Amino acid sequence: MKKIAIIGATGSIGTQTLDVIRQHPEAFEVVGLTAQSRVKELASFVEEFKPAKVAVGSKEKAKELQTLISTSTTIVYGEEGLMEVAVDSGADIVLMAIIGSAGILPTIEALQAGKDVAIANKETLVAAGEIVIDVARRSKGELIAVDSEHSAIFQALSGQSLEDVSRLIVTASGGAFRDKTREEMAHLTAIDALKHPNWAMGDKITIDSATLMNKGFEVMEAHWLFDISYDKIDVLVHKESYIHSIVEYHDGSMMAQLGAPDMRVAIQYALHHPRRLKSDFKRLDWTNIATMHFEQPDFTRFPCLRYCYEAGRAGGTMPAVLNASNEVANARFREGKIGFLDIEKVIYETMAQHTISSSPSLEEILAVDEEARRIAEGMVKASQG
Amino acid sequence: MKKIAIIGATGSIGTQTLDVIRQHPEAFEVVGLTAQSRVKELASFVEEFKPAKVAVGSKEKAKELQTLISTSTTIVYGEEGLMEVAVDSGADIVLMAIIGSAGILPTIEALQAGKDVAIANKETLVAAGEIVIDVARRSKGELIAVDSEHSAIFQALSGQSLEDVSRLIVTASGGAFRDKTREEMAHLTAIDALKHPNWAMGDKITIDSATLMNKGFEVMEAHWLFDISYDKIDVLVHKESYIHSIVEYHDGSMMAQLGAPDMRVAIQYALHHPRRLKSDFKRLDWTNIATMHFEQPDFTRFPCLRYCYEAGRAGGTMPAVLNASNEVANARFREGKIGFLDIEKVIYETMAQHTISSSPSLEEILAVDEEARRIAEGMVKASQG
Repeated sequence: MKKIAIIGATGSIGTQTLDVIRQHPEAFEVVGLTAQSRVKELASFVEEFKPAKVAVGSKEKAKELQTLISTSTTIVYGEEGLMEVAVDSGADIVLMAIIGSAGILPTIEALQAGKDVAIANKETLVAAGEIVIDVARRSKGELIAVDSEHSAIFQALSGQSLEDVSRLIVTASGGAFRDKTREEMAHLTAIDALKHPNWAMGDKITIDSATLMNKGFEVMEAHWLFDISYDKIDVLVHKESYIHSIVEYHDGSMMAQLGAPDMRVAIQYALHHPRRLKSDFKRLDWTNIATMHFEQPDFTRFPCLRYCYEAGRAGGTMPAVLNASNEVANARFREGKIGFLDIEKVIYETMAQHTISSSPSLEEILAVDEEARRIAEGMVKASQG
Repeated sequence: MKKIAIIGATGSIGTQTLDVIRQHPEAFEVVGLTAQSRVKELASFVEEFKPAKVAVGSKEKAKELQTLISTSTTIVYGEEGLMEVAVDSGADIVLMAIIGSAGILPTIEALQAGKDVAIANKETLVAAGEIVIDVARRSKGELIAVDSEHSAIFQALSGQSLEDVSRLIVTASGGAFRDKTREEMAHLTAIDALKHPNWAMGDKITIDSATLMNKGFEVMEAHWLFDISYDKIDVLVHKESYIHSIVEYHDGSMMAQLGAPDMRVAIQYALHHPRRLKSDFKRLDWTNIATMHFEQPDFTRFPCLRYCYEAGRAGGTMPAVLNASNEVANARFREGKIGFLDIEKVIYETMAQHTISSSPSLEEILAVDEEARRIAEGMVKASQG
């Protein structure tokens, strides 16, 4: 029986994780949950799973939650409360499903407390990969891939040696604007971008998917998770998303993981590997698959993908700038304040203004994150005016 | 340093195995080689690899070989000589690369002597799977898949549990006559059939590939090697042969092995797994792969594939009858004595005349093999007359 705490239980990954646990009560027990503000949803999860401890965003939300539940669950709140659930709810595995650089600190704290961290939060490794990996190496906690692409790589590495890997090939659906011209992109809105072809995901990540920033983040994550240099990580556009990623070994053999686009398979593998639990998740049906398509990514139409390689190779504080400016630009685009092509412009200009500090401390990264947000907000204003 | 004996060194798999060893003198040493009659080729291998012991088909061939070599290699001959190389040349791994049911006895003897057997001979498991697997279970020797499809499955099982497998999907190029009608097949010759689209293989197996008998044999081999029932083994036609086979797990995840069509990758993995040796074998080049195609196999146009499932499910002595009658029909087709569609007819009629004996001894199987050959030769005569 594995004890699970979910940081960000009411989001897309959080609810899918609860669905995995719901299907396997013999294998998993929920001991901790957190939510920022969706208290009603959280209350229903508390009633269903009876965790020992839950955290919400504020004291007011904590009071509201108290009126909605009948269990003896301890309710805590704020950033401190979230840390308490990550570190001190008795979990074996902490599933990190909150979005943005807010995931950095709880990930580090959970690892330092010796927990395994199943990391669905991309920005943590993008912004603070070097530090987080260093903490993971020195702690007895393991950092486990959850994202479908990284889970695919993790599965394709099963029983194999990282030393024998020659290349990682991260597949990409291509996002909602895969076949759009730059001219067309200039006029597309958040509503257009939120129609992702294959995967059901949160809003922020679906926009990141349309810019291919999400794919670039995955390249950066793969770099840290699997300790592979950027020139050995390729992106391959595969619009059907049947193949979730590929590992090429130095004997010329390639191992790929395939499946229906259902995050629950990856979440379940993260929580229960190396053994697999029998599940009724949708299967790929080969009687319906006639063709798979592949093409090289277009770094010209999708410069955000290029920025990720550039920021990743530059290292130091640059990835944190990339991530922070993207969080701002992504949010402002969703609010309709800037156009689609302004996203890349805001990121580019914010990165251009930054002077890299190498091997930064966590404090430096958090300071750079804040400063980059400020600059990016300025760019947003400028591009509106 | 792994010590290797190759049974059938001058054939397609044998020479490719020697090429693997040639590329990795630090990892492998050749201690034994056998050939039936190609003495000159064998002599050059003896000079190059200096094995302790070699076997040839007859006393005359042994004398001829002696005049061609300058090493202190011991030369033995006949069936007994072949067994001696398999069992007593100091090998860690015996690579079984001879063709036909002649592979059964040396495989069993090598396993009983505690050797690992890398099995490239299909007919052994097809005709005597139950016995061979039983011997392998009770010996300390391991039976290792070499065929590209079974190597793909073996690799896709790496680090995983057989208990978690829900299905094996054996991919098939479809053979030389993939898109031919039955009407066209009736007039096709061995020369047409020997043009295999993707793989360079021996003649017998290339004809088996055109009838899909080879794919059916692979289903039967997979049944024995991975202990999976026939209703959990599917065939999937994938004409490009990029994906070499797929394992579906009961969580819905699938692991596939991909690569350029080069048997040396599979041979090397068999000899050196779980670690992989760096090699310059051709890579799949994703900049050149735009599409992969998939279709369901056609059991009506290719009844031999159906016969394999039927013989496999019937069990007992029936698979030996299937195999023996196919060896006869395949050979007579290559000699131009019967037409392409006569192959399936000879097999069908020979199987129809057989009364199954369940859980047969090895002696029974060898007797049935002989009897089926006699009957099949009769069918060949009948279909000529």
